[in-house]
Amino acid sequence: MTAHCGTLYVISAPSGAGKTSLVAALLERDPRLRVSVSHTTRASRPGEVDGTNYHFVSQDVFVEMIGQGAFLEHAEVFGNYYGTSQLWVNEQLALDRDVILEIDWQGAQQVRRLRPDCVSIFIAPPSLAELRLRLERRGQDNADVIDRRMREATAECSHHGEYDYLVLNDHFEDALADLLAIARAERARTESQQVRHPELIRGLLSPG
Amino acid sequence: MTAHCGTLYVISAPSGAGKTSLVAALLERDPRLRVSVSHTTRASRPGEVDGTNYHFVSQDVFVEMIGQGAFLEHAEVFGNYYGTSQLWVNEQLALDRDVILEIDWQGAQQVRRLRPDCVSIFIAPPSLAELRLRLERRGQDNADVIDRRMREATAECSHHGEYDYLVLNDHFEDALADLLAIARAERARTESQQVRHPELIRGLLSPG
Repeated sequence: MTAHCGTLYVISAPSGAGKTSLVAALLERDPRLRVSVSHTTRASRPGEVDGTNYHFVSQDVFVEMIGQGAFLEHAEVFGNYYGTSQLWVNEQLALDRDVILEIDWQGAQQVRRLRPDCVSIFIAPPSLAELRLRLERRGQDNADVIDRRMREATAECSHHGEYDYLVLNDHFEDALADLLAIARAERARTESQQVRHPELIRGLLSPG
Repeated sequence: MTAHCGTLYVISAPSGAGKTSLVAALLERDPRLRVSVSHTTRASRPGEVDGTNYHFVSQDVFVEMIGQGAFLEHAEVFGNYYGTSQLWVNEQLALDRDVILEIDWQGAQQVRRLRPDCVSIFIAPPSLAELRLRLERRGQDNADVIDRRMREATAECSHHGEYDYLVLNDHFEDALADLLAIARAERARTESQQVRHPELIRGLLSPG
């Protein structure tokens, strides 16, 4: 076990379930949470800041980092690598900060193997049928793109049972309240209290 | 596994930690929670109502119930029996209500054996030294009684590590917020959602 104080959260959701807005609101309301900044080999886009949006690295550096076991999880998407550095995550956890990884079910499986103590949350739309309606109503995508998104969403949702928590995003404020409650409750877990407040535990064991 | 929807909570605390006030405030704020009404063989006191404060039964009935395995936990205190009926608890859980048992560490151990899925919470004072100060300041008890209470509190606190959650009652509102968060988070647990919302799960698995 790595000595650390904070909690590592893994949050997954099918595209369109509202994860991005929910995590943004969660960070605003709970200052002890932060989101991991991924490493990537893809080129930065206008407005993206190195170290804020991503850590931009070359393919050589990324492959070397894989060889060193530097990543908690990594994936290749359309020829580009994306990954989460263990080093940064461990530093944050040691500072008693909770870290959120926004990754898909495959990344979640990798993280659970390395960090079985992580807390995983699946954010779900009310239903896949509702998700399709939302995509269609939005009118941004043609039928082929909607079909592809729905196939991906269906695959993602089929893994919901692997997560510790299932947060339903039917009403935004309810889903946000669930996420805030989970973060607060996890801090009240006995193991978490024992690691973060040894002086409290001592005070409970030695009679006054 | 018994089929049920609600969550069974076990809450313990040393006397003087503020458990009674916290649980009362919790019930007021979260209408899906209720407290178990114990069976007892002791005589009812003025103002106590059968079925509200306790289920008052004879010693013969109580002993017969023990023989039938009717109790989730039971104890003898100063010649009187106290116990929690499984029947009532299961009825409430099946109605998707969460049930709170306010019992000591010995009762908690009995319940965990029969219901490993229960969620246990230990409410702690800031320290045993602080607990002693509170008892002394109150001025109700003489030194002998305070010593006895402190021995009991020390024994109770030595079992805090057996509980899922450790809620520190330093500031009442913070401790109450922890308890409310725990109840909300436990409802968002995937297994809990799967049992309570099978229609939601179906909607996540069949493409729209």
